[in-house]
Amino acid sequence: MARSAANPAVQADGSGAQSRVRDLEPLFAPKSIAVIGASRTPGTVGSAIPSNLILGGYTGVVYPVNPKAKSIMGARCVPSISAIDDHVDLAVIILPAPAVEKAVLEAADHGTKHLVIISAGFKEVGEEGAQRERRIKAIADERGLSIIGPNCLGVINTAPDVRMNASFGRDMPRPGRIGLISQSGALCTALLDYAKGHHLGFSRFISFGNKCDVTEVDLLRCLASDRNTDIIMMYVEDISDGQAFVNAAYEITHGSNPKPILAMKTGRTAQGAAAAASHTGSLAGSDEVYDAIMSQAGVIRVNSVEDLFNFAPVFLDNRMPAGNQTAIVTNAGGPGIMATDACIRNGMELAKFGEYTLKSLKFQMPPAANIKNPVDVIGDAKHDRYRSALDAVTADANVHQIVVIVTPQTMTDVVEIAEVVGEAKEFCDKPIVACFMGAVDVSPGVELLRKHDVPVYMFPEDAMQALAVRERFARWTRSPSLGYKHFDVQAEAVDAIFAEELAAGRNQLVEVKALAVFEKYGFPIVPYSLARTADEAVEAARRMEFPVVLKIAGPKILHKTDVGGVKLNLTNDDEVRTGFNNMIATVKERMGADVEIWGVLVQKMLPKGKEIILGMTRDPRFGPLLMFGLGGIYTEALRDVAFRLAPIRENVAGEMIKDIRSYRLLEGVRGERPSDMAAIADCLLRLSQLVTSHPQIKELDINPLMVYPRGQGAMVADARVILSE
Amino acid sequence: MARSAANPAVQADGSGAQSRVRDLEPLFAPKSIAVIGASRTPGTVGSAIPSNLILGGYTGVVYPVNPKAKSIMGARCVPSISAIDDHVDLAVIILPAPAVEKAVLEAADHGTKHLVIISAGFKEVGEEGAQRERRIKAIADERGLSIIGPNCLGVINTAPDVRMNASFGRDMPRPGRIGLISQSGALCTALLDYAKGHHLGFSRFISFGNKCDVTEVDLLRCLASDRNTDIIMMYVEDISDGQAFVNAAYEITHGSNPKPILAMKTGRTAQGAAAAASHTGSLAGSDEVYDAIMSQAGVIRVNSVEDLFNFAPVFLDNRMPAGNQTAIVTNAGGPGIMATDACIRNGMELAKFGEYTLKSLKFQMPPAANIKNPVDVIGDAKHDRYRSALDAVTADANVHQIVVIVTPQTMTDVVEIAEVVGEAKEFCDKPIVACFMGAVDVSPGVELLRKHDVPVYMFPEDAMQALAVRERFARWTRSPSLGYKHFDVQAEAVDAIFAEELAAGRNQLVEVKALAVFEKYGFPIVPYSLARTADEAVEAARRMEFPVVLKIAGPKILHKTDVGGVKLNLTNDDEVRTGFNNMIATVKERMGADVEIWGVLVQKMLPKGKEIILGMTRDPRFGPLLMFGLGGIYTEALRDVAFRLAPIRENVAGEMIKDIRSYRLLEGVRGERPSDMAAIADCLLRLSQLVTSHPQIKELDINPLMVYPRGQGAMVADARVILSE
Repeated sequence: MARSAANPAVQADGSGAQSRVRDLEPLFAPKSIAVIGASRTPGTVGSAIPSNLILGGYTGVVYPVNPKAKSIMGARCVPSISAIDDHVDLAVIILPAPAVEKAVLEAADHGTKHLVIISAGFKEVGEEGAQRERRIKAIADERGLSIIGPNCLGVINTAPDVRMNASFGRDMPRPGRIGLISQSGALCTALLDYAKGHHLGFSRFISFGNKCDVTEVDLLRCLASDRNTDIIMMYVEDISDGQAFVNAAYEITHGSNPKPILAMKTGRTAQGAAAAASHTGSLAGSDEVYDAIMSQAGVIRVNSVEDLFNFAPVFLDNRMPAGNQTAIVTNAGGPGIMATDACIRNGMELAKFGEYTLKSLKFQMPPAANIKNPVDVIGDAKHDRYRSALDAVTADANVHQIVVIVTPQTMTDVVEIAEVVGEAKEFCDKPIVACFMGAVDVSPGVELLRKHDVPVYMFPEDAMQALAVRERFARWTRSPSLGYKHFDVQAEAVDAIFAEELAAGRNQLVEVKALAVFEKYGFPIVPYSLARTADEAVEAARRMEFPVVLKIAGPKILHKTDVGGVKLNLTNDDEVRTGFNNMIATVKERMGADVEIWGVLVQKMLPKGKEIILGMTRDPRFGPLLMFGLGGIYTEALRDVAFRLAPIRENVAGEMIKDIRSYRLLEGVRGERPSDMAAIADCLLRLSQLVTSHPQIKELDINPLMVYPRGQGAMVADARVILSE
Repeated sequence: MARSAANPAVQADGSGAQSRVRDLEPLFAPKSIAVIGASRTPGTVGSAIPSNLILGGYTGVVYPVNPKAKSIMGARCVPSISAIDDHVDLAVIILPAPAVEKAVLEAADHGTKHLVIISAGFKEVGEEGAQRERRIKAIADERGLSIIGPNCLGVINTAPDVRMNASFGRDMPRPGRIGLISQSGALCTALLDYAKGHHLGFSRFISFGNKCDVTEVDLLRCLASDRNTDIIMMYVEDISDGQAFVNAAYEITHGSNPKPILAMKTGRTAQGAAAAASHTGSLAGSDEVYDAIMSQAGVIRVNSVEDLFNFAPVFLDNRMPAGNQTAIVTNAGGPGIMATDACIRNGMELAKFGEYTLKSLKFQMPPAANIKNPVDVIGDAKHDRYRSALDAVTADANVHQIVVIVTPQTMTDVVEIAEVVGEAKEFCDKPIVACFMGAVDVSPGVELLRKHDVPVYMFPEDAMQALAVRERFARWTRSPSLGYKHFDVQAEAVDAIFAEELAAGRNQLVEVKALAVFEKYGFPIVPYSLARTADEAVEAARRMEFPVVLKIAGPKILHKTDVGGVKLNLTNDDEVRTGFNNMIATVKERMGADVEIWGVLVQKMLPKGKEIILGMTRDPRFGPLLMFGLGGIYTEALRDVAFRLAPIRENVAGEMIKDIRSYRLLEGVRGERPSDMAAIADCLLRLSQLVTSHPQIKELDINPLMVYPRGQGAMVADARVILSE
């Protein structure tokens, strides 16, 4: 019945728009760079970029373009790019906005395919600027250019054979394994400065500004294939193409050589989003959508720059934890409790030591020490006691990762302990992080740990949170790469219904038509039948067993209850017959005798179950967004619903169900049996296929889907489908 | 009917146990100190304490007590405290645990009233140690001693006329306005080191360990009255007496000279709490209770040491914000959005600038700048542009507080901008904080800001959170000091019911008795009547108007539904008569003919409203804990309830109602009218008085309290009261 398929989305919803695969390597490793708008005036951007290139040790040739100057930093100026007697791999443009278009054309004429436009004065300043930007994008498409910017800080590549700092940041970052892309240019300068303080280095550092041409998705793919990049950091204020982002990020985080993506997306609150719009001129999507997209793509969404730098060090360690069993070694009880709290709060567990470990610790630790997890080596511990404790704990098969906490007491030999931790990290195949609490006395130890590449934190909470984030990512990379379930359905029949309704000028389907659509996609539907006479109604009711419900059916009758068009709980022939006749009469009385009536929908009255809502709304930027939640006023008031972009992979349906806060109600409380989750998941997957295959559907609701205890399935009781006009 | 009263709790629930007011001043400003267990061996605690006292510049006299040494650090040793020919204000004991008791007795004999016991080996190591500790506490009570510890780091007072470092921390902290108390000794050393890194100073620094005698409440009162202390920080793993803590903290945070209390309480999760037990031997209360207690007492609960140090700097500024309207000045759009997000997320608002401010900014800023809040002075801004922007913004009456964000761009003159911010802080009467993003390039600016006492943060989120915490505290200090509402009730009648029930051996009240209790406390009760005959039932039903409910009433009949003892929705005389007779018959059939039946409870059948639960459970350590929540399975599954310790002040009832996540349902959704909050609050206050006045009540539930739209009140529909046996 069902088969697994490759991603059907690319064909189905036109997200293939992003499919031009860009080779951005010449942009990041150019042999020659023209700096158009280079300047001799110190303190200007036009002066900073050639200076950064030359002082940063760029390995290629720099051509400053300036019709008035003879040389800049010793490099001979040319009056225009056309005057350069060499192929120019990359042009960096720093001209005033109105002059940029002409420069782009000249560069294209000269054969340059890659450009970085630093200049501001485009989309972010209003309609005039936006028009300028669109004209440049048109040139890029026509001439096959790749353009980063405008309105950005520039690009940096620290690879030793390139050493390109084509940015106006203060100085070249140290080389490292982090690739960073950022929509905000100014933030980049702060990020570079934090990185300096944290002793973190970068492989590539890209400020992409208004992304008129090259987008975050192009840059993610570029960092994914860069062998100098192990971790990707990104800062965005909006995402241009949700579907392309999900596909690219999923491939990067879940492929054969997964790389973590730490993403900060601002504009979380409504007012924040308004500020984003005025900042970049881009319309930010609602925050729920971004959460859904990130989670679906395996992207680690961070809430602050601080988290970005707290999480990065653990990912620089290639050893992934085999599980979430965590050991804590501390010389102070209080911080041990803090770490324990944070461990549990972050969804991990305290490792339970094996008998041998306990014996070994008991033998080696003083009597007052706590040998259970968290191991308290007590305040007077020196490095030898830390070493014994670490040896015992790291050897324990129940332990997957270790946090070493040090408070600087009078006898604490901070540096020697750091050495012990560094060595343990070298020889142990499990991730180890350190928490050296304090700021001054512990700092020589912290320095040493950084030399050993041991992630080190000031606070136990931060250490634990970083471990938890990596552990979740490790689980994500191990999760099977499930495909998209494909159900055999009657898609043509559904298209026919839609065509018929649209032809009749109806874009909101009445219930009987909506139920037919879901039926053709194999959803479990409450038994129903359209009766045109009272006799037909009685016959249908007998067939589906009493009690039944009657609902008026007609092309214009959307609010059935208001016109007396619903009767519940009819238990025998007579009630159905009388109900049918009265209903027709009442509806005609209220809507006029010439109202078009198709008949009466006879439905089996469903036994009480848990009421679920499934829905879809098509986001203009992101495409079809599936929603899942419990029914009823409670869920709505608390906004306790889960979103995912369709199509969803097989395992995502189950994740969506577990995502809501009130999931416990589905597991069953007060001795109830758990609900039939498999039935809900099946409906979600069918829904995913339905909305992916039929772009005519603008939005829909199944409300309620009545769900019964495990093994007893679910039933679509009512549904609403709205088509695009 | 109701009058305000002083705190009735002190009389009512015996919390006066803490009422011995201790004068701890001699302990913190002693003229003479005996160090019992002083040692010449470097690296020992016995050597660290006399050394810290002498090198710290202690202004009094130190008597090292050591029968074997002649002198320690130049000070002449004595063999025992009795050999000192001087009054000893404070004795610090560092002996092995078994020797401590004798030393305490000797000190008491010598006339010393104040002791700090550093030694470990007491409650935290098991029953033997706990016994030792109890014997010492008995001596303290008998001889009128005040003892800090055992199992602590010691005490520090940086006041220039004292300069006492009677601790084994590494060195003396710099003097400052923060008073700190900590249950964990080892954590103290880390706290001292953080403080050093953050350039924060302390007035007094107290590690109180196992608190066998002097508790956190005594120390809070001591810091409250210390004129060198402006802010109180505390770290606790448990609180000994919840009621005393609430009373003391409320007085400190809400008096005429309020001081903020920043409290960290660990053991939040179940496993964390278990670790706390093994660490200090104390049983930590459940976390909900602590949240309730802190919130009620105006204490700022922090989640991490990091928050402790992030929040402290804003409180060192005495200017409290007049409101939550926040202005942001930034040279980078991205961080402006981050700050906006954090502002809204923390419950504050972006200030809306007045017309004059906008004009002034428009005149002074370059065209590309954003002059609306957040003000973006753009990347090339130097200190002069920051100054113009700050002048305009601080003068705006709509602005209550300001965040200045600086990212280190090429042209940014970080130090000069810091100077501008420092001056603005000097001359402006509104709180200003700075966020200098980065770690290295910004550090000279950060140094300068610290000199100006401007709170400075690395990340916008931290700056905003600190402002929000202070703003909430400012609101708290301004909130009227409401007393305890006192209702005229029939307390003796309630006592009589309890006495009668207990005398009859019944500690769980049947419904009719429980309703009587609430009736005598003036709760709105669904009209009810106990009918002994069918005729009485019919008469009662007519009196209260149909429809009615019948419920069997008898001293042993607790599960009425199970024995056929409930009939709903009876609409006429006949149904009531038949219902009465059938019910008596069925109950006798099921429970035996000799079951004691008092009659049948006739209740008016209530119209549908919102179902609320009110309840109380008496915590052995904290006393009566009130609970409020929406009724139904949903609330229970989500644990969406609010707790407060009784008695509650008048304004607290309203806070409890707003505390639950599903408060929106009470406000009314989908065009519903809001519920009658005043009626709920009235019931909560009456409940508070009931449980405070009648310690016999062990626990109770009103479930449901049926609440109607505003102005239409509420009704107790069913209730359960359990008495202590």
